[in-house]
Amino acid sequence: MINLIDRPYGQKYNPKETTTRFASGVTGGNKMTIQQISSFAAGEWIAPGAGARNIASAITGDVIASAGNNDLDVQGMLDYARNVGGPALRKMTFHERAKMLKAVAAYLGKHKQAMYDLSFETGATQNDHLIDIDGGIGTMFVFASKGRREMPDGHVYLDGDVEQLSRNGTFLGQHICTPLQGVAVHINAFNFPVWGMLEKVAPTLLAGVPCIVKPATNSCYVTELCVRLMLESGLLPAGAIQLVSGGLGDMLDRLGMQDVVSFTGSAQTAMKLRSNPVILENSVRFVAEQDSLNGSILGPDAQPGTPEFDLFVKEVQREMTTKAGQKCTAIRRIIAPENTVQAVIEALSARLAKTVIGDPRLETTRMGALVSNGQKRDVLEKAGIIGQEAERVFGDPDAFDVEGADAEKGAFLPPMLFHCANPDSAERVHDTEAFGPVSTIMGYRDVDHAIELANKGLGSLVASVITHDPAVARQVALGSGAYHGRLYFNNRDSMKESTGHGSPLPHMVHGGPGRAGGGEELGGVRGVTHYMQRTAIQGSPDILSAIGEKWVPGATEIKADAHPFTRRYGELAIGETMHTAARTVTLEDIEHFANFTGDTFYAHMDDAAAERNPFFPGRVAHGYLLLSFAAGLFVEPNEGPVLANTGLDNLRFMKPVSAGDSIKVRLSVKKKTQRNDEYGEVRWHVTLTNQDDELVAEYELLTMNAY
Amino acid sequence: MINLIDRPYGQKYNPKETTTRFASGVTGGNKMTIQQISSFAAGEWIAPGAGARNIASAITGDVIASAGNNDLDVQGMLDYARNVGGPALRKMTFHERAKMLKAVAAYLGKHKQAMYDLSFETGATQNDHLIDIDGGIGTMFVFASKGRREMPDGHVYLDGDVEQLSRNGTFLGQHICTPLQGVAVHINAFNFPVWGMLEKVAPTLLAGVPCIVKPATNSCYVTELCVRLMLESGLLPAGAIQLVSGGLGDMLDRLGMQDVVSFTGSAQTAMKLRSNPVILENSVRFVAEQDSLNGSILGPDAQPGTPEFDLFVKEVQREMTTKAGQKCTAIRRIIAPENTVQAVIEALSARLAKTVIGDPRLETTRMGALVSNGQKRDVLEKAGIIGQEAERVFGDPDAFDVEGADAEKGAFLPPMLFHCANPDSAERVHDTEAFGPVSTIMGYRDVDHAIELANKGLGSLVASVITHDPAVARQVALGSGAYHGRLYFNNRDSMKESTGHGSPLPHMVHGGPGRAGGGEELGGVRGVTHYMQRTAIQGSPDILSAIGEKWVPGATEIKADAHPFTRRYGELAIGETMHTAARTVTLEDIEHFANFTGDTFYAHMDDAAAERNPFFPGRVAHGYLLLSFAAGLFVEPNEGPVLANTGLDNLRFMKPVSAGDSIKVRLSVKKKTQRNDEYGEVRWHVTLTNQDDELVAEYELLTMNAY
Repeated sequence: MINLIDRPYGQKYNPKETTTRFASGVTGGNKMTIQQISSFAAGEWIAPGAGARNIASAITGDVIASAGNNDLDVQGMLDYARNVGGPALRKMTFHERAKMLKAVAAYLGKHKQAMYDLSFETGATQNDHLIDIDGGIGTMFVFASKGRREMPDGHVYLDGDVEQLSRNGTFLGQHICTPLQGVAVHINAFNFPVWGMLEKVAPTLLAGVPCIVKPATNSCYVTELCVRLMLESGLLPAGAIQLVSGGLGDMLDRLGMQDVVSFTGSAQTAMKLRSNPVILENSVRFVAEQDSLNGSILGPDAQPGTPEFDLFVKEVQREMTTKAGQKCTAIRRIIAPENTVQAVIEALSARLAKTVIGDPRLETTRMGALVSNGQKRDVLEKAGIIGQEAERVFGDPDAFDVEGADAEKGAFLPPMLFHCANPDSAERVHDTEAFGPVSTIMGYRDVDHAIELANKGLGSLVASVITHDPAVARQVALGSGAYHGRLYFNNRDSMKESTGHGSPLPHMVHGGPGRAGGGEELGGVRGVTHYMQRTAIQGSPDILSAIGEKWVPGATEIKADAHPFTRRYGELAIGETMHTAARTVTLEDIEHFANFTGDTFYAHMDDAAAERNPFFPGRVAHGYLLLSFAAGLFVEPNEGPVLANTGLDNLRFMKPVSAGDSIKVRLSVKKKTQRNDEYGEVRWHVTLTNQDDELVAEYELLTMNAY
Repeated sequence: MINLIDRPYGQKYNPKETTTRFASGVTGGNKMTIQQISSFAAGEWIAPGAGARNIASAITGDVIASAGNNDLDVQGMLDYARNVGGPALRKMTFHERAKMLKAVAAYLGKHKQAMYDLSFETGATQNDHLIDIDGGIGTMFVFASKGRREMPDGHVYLDGDVEQLSRNGTFLGQHICTPLQGVAVHINAFNFPVWGMLEKVAPTLLAGVPCIVKPATNSCYVTELCVRLMLESGLLPAGAIQLVSGGLGDMLDRLGMQDVVSFTGSAQTAMKLRSNPVILENSVRFVAEQDSLNGSILGPDAQPGTPEFDLFVKEVQREMTTKAGQKCTAIRRIIAPENTVQAVIEALSARLAKTVIGDPRLETTRMGALVSNGQKRDVLEKAGIIGQEAERVFGDPDAFDVEGADAEKGAFLPPMLFHCANPDSAERVHDTEAFGPVSTIMGYRDVDHAIELANKGLGSLVASVITHDPAVARQVALGSGAYHGRLYFNNRDSMKESTGHGSPLPHMVHGGPGRAGGGEELGGVRGVTHYMQRTAIQGSPDILSAIGEKWVPGATEIKADAHPFTRRYGELAIGETMHTAARTVTLEDIEHFANFTGDTFYAHMDDAAAERNPFFPGRVAHGYLLLSFAAGLFVEPNEGPVLANTGLDNLRFMKPVSAGDSIKVRLSVKKKTQRNDEYGEVRWHVTLTNQDDELVAEYELLTMNAY
């Protein structure tokens, strides 16, 4: 069924052909051959070799593939990434890399059917594919978009504002981020062979760092196909991505201070990896995202009969059964008001009873198989441990229906709900994760008790609260925030657009303290900075301007021959500056402006009242009058490359202007951001000073300028 | 000489008395008794006991103090911090904690003479005290100031903006930070007994987390005095700070997922601590700041005769001799153009030759002693290793003058300069840190070679570049940024106000990758977040508004009976909203405004030219006209609690307004920040919509309102 022909790197891939082969293999199911799942190392596809491991179908238990090669040249892979991939990626700007991601995501989107077809074999349903495959592609699109909107079209990302380190401003500070010069090794879990890879690959490549992907062997055949598609798109520079199907050998012992390990999986494996003395000694960045005992709290207001109660039952059922409960964010602990526990058990059991289990390729199937029979045994063992402290109130692993597949051979399990009557004295229900369709309900007395129970998980990726009461939400955020990487609130107001307890979004950080591994992924640009070094830069305004490609107050002013509004986007230089003539503001101006606009605020109209005000010497000019006069002073009226004033930022009025004072303007090009082939945004730094050269107002003006 | 009487916690401290005793002890120097340096545990001062260690004077080698107690109840200390200190600190807002820090810093400032007097005994000069003691107090002041200016007067710190997670805005994201609910254990180096403590204590307490300080035993008597002063100020809640003078026992084995270890010291000790299985297993945050082989690069433009050349020699000499070279940021590698190496050696040697070494209490002394004779032996051993690859060109440890002290008994050393002729093949000069007045000069061929040499340190806290060429600065930032926590640039423009290669500033991050430990401290609010958990919050606008105490678009509008401009600061509620009437904008208005302000930009005046513009349908109203009319619509003219419009943020024009269109305004209270007892800042969210309810403009308006 997996019929991939190894192709030399760069040879064009024919998606139609591959799709057809998968499709016939998958649906036919006969004449299976054991597929050879390759690694992609230093530009070559390497077939399995010594030490290769067999991989079984989750549905039939038959061996379908083989992966692993003890002779993989891991040092060669690291060298290739560091010496070929890294330099190529670092030459590109953030925007160029973002555009590359967008194109790769679009390419994957066109060929996702091939991945769907293959992924069924892992036990996943079509709905699960939407999370894994479409979710992975969507994550890549979001990083592409954030890269263009929130990062510069340059090589240096500025973190925060300029820091004033000196009285006269000749010595300033600015934090920057630049890409690490090593390689990112991504070690992924079996449950999301596509999303699990792409959610790490997208921020890594956007940062400008090459990666080596090591998927879990159980489902690595899906990841391998996705990597083939990415490579065969021809959109990535050589060395940007490599793949290890099978074991990593001693790769981690060869990492240095410019490398990153990004791990998703069990606490046990994480502990082994993070104890590696080479990793510790070289301060190798280690981002861990581990399974955790995520809880979901039903608010005290969300009694049966409320929309929140129904929503809660629906979300819990979905989290228990999606991906057969093999989700690091799944709800393992259901925390409900004591007086609703019975109602929740009944409503949830009714929903769970309707969950059709079977061959994931069947349209009627709502829950597929676990990834392997080994995983099934592990879940049953953990459920047994939980069963010592909690009573099973739904689901019998020895008696349940499986549609369209052999329940004995495939890794099928029913959803199992436990009820823990004494959650305060219980321990195992708070620290034992059965990584399957298993959850435990427990009652709480009041919100503080619910918080205490949620925190007993000692660190989780996500906790959710279904409540319509903002005060409950705030209480949980303050009491439980420090224990969770994400807090998900839902109620009648947000339920139509909410994205689900278990869905990490590329915009929001994914990770959590303690048992969840103490790491962070995603979170927009935050996730990109994990692959960059933050450096504090100190120096003169000219030095900071040159490094950040952004004008810094105090930097040398560049004078052009012509009015800057007559110069096209491409002609304007960072630091290009004009000074205007002065204009006197009269009392007539103030009164006229007040009457014309309707803004007859007392500070402008009533001398005595204005004087009583702690900020004004008497009647003063309107702030908007000053802005308007300033525009009158600097605008070039004739048709030219300036297309529009699109906005204004950080306006501060520093000193009032009284009748008789005059104002003049300084306008400098602060930053340029190309928007498309036709025009780009120019950010101007503007200061207004009075007749004594005192600062009256300061702001940043945005214009769109023709290219 | 250290004559501290243990006082019960809370008993008023008499600084005059203490100061006098120190002074007489220090200057008299006779009749020394061995001082008992106590720990402060769970509200009690605990004198040294079993396992106490003797501490010798750096100047005389005589035993002056004793510290350590194997029977210290470390679990009791952790419990006290977690159960008493943490809850008390978390009750306070960020502003309240910032004010507390300011008061403590002011108190320490009043009593710094006592710390000066005592600190001489560590070998430090008065100039060194300015860095350690005044620098520590100054760091606390900066955190106090940043806490008030950059953090809210509330309990939740908002990290970044609202994330749009849904089309209709009913489900949104926001990252928040809340204080960890555990304890921060600070393990400090011997070189800065005051700054080393306060630079960690300030962000920790500002975050709302209690701390346990463990100074290096060699100089812990200075830290102990500083802690006494802080406690006796009566300004800190019980449990906010505790002190371990001596060893930590098994405290680290008792840490959990809400705790933090913040370590400064050697790589060897860091490695031991970070390998602790409890720390690894519980994902205990571990911030390490280790000694590193910091380099300073002389730019290719900075030839002899330039101001930069002289500046370079001066900075290197200062870094080599300050604190007798016992600074984690000191310049260990001097990287100069090959053609200037000889000139640098000569100029630097001339300056070093003038460095008077001796009793630090003498006014003429420029360099005091190392902290101990053990440290002196270690430096000599490391200098010997460096000497295998480099030739000593200045300073002879067997022949140098010491003023006012016994060179045999005290831990004195001369500055020693080495020259490495083959830095490419050398290894030890790039990885051996002699933690004393020792540095190695090496030549480079071009800027890329200089970068290569700087990066051979495999991670440092700081690298500096003395250049007047912004292009050189940018080249180094791109090539070397990933290897350094800080890049310090200096030249003729900034030298008068620059703060020094070796000075970590509270505004800028301090830490570095690889050998420097991979950690980060300071950096303003960044340093505070190390003691908080970042949590991704998802929910409806009402939920996000309640958690963040900041109005979020889409949240329920609150209607008050009166115009919001007639309501005082304290009366205004977050979300309070007014809607104005509409006003039609006429062509006469546009022409009148243009002629009055002088802003006759073609988009407002010339229908044909405006139509050629990609953004406009024809002539449109000025953006500032819209702002001004909007103010006319919402302003309440009579004298009232609104004192001034102080600024405007994030203005974006979304849709042009043509003659005949009308605009109306919605104004909502977004955020409130009290400034003093008399007034506070109100941030209003403002939207302008047209006759079709389309968004025309959106911005945030700032007013100052009477309390």
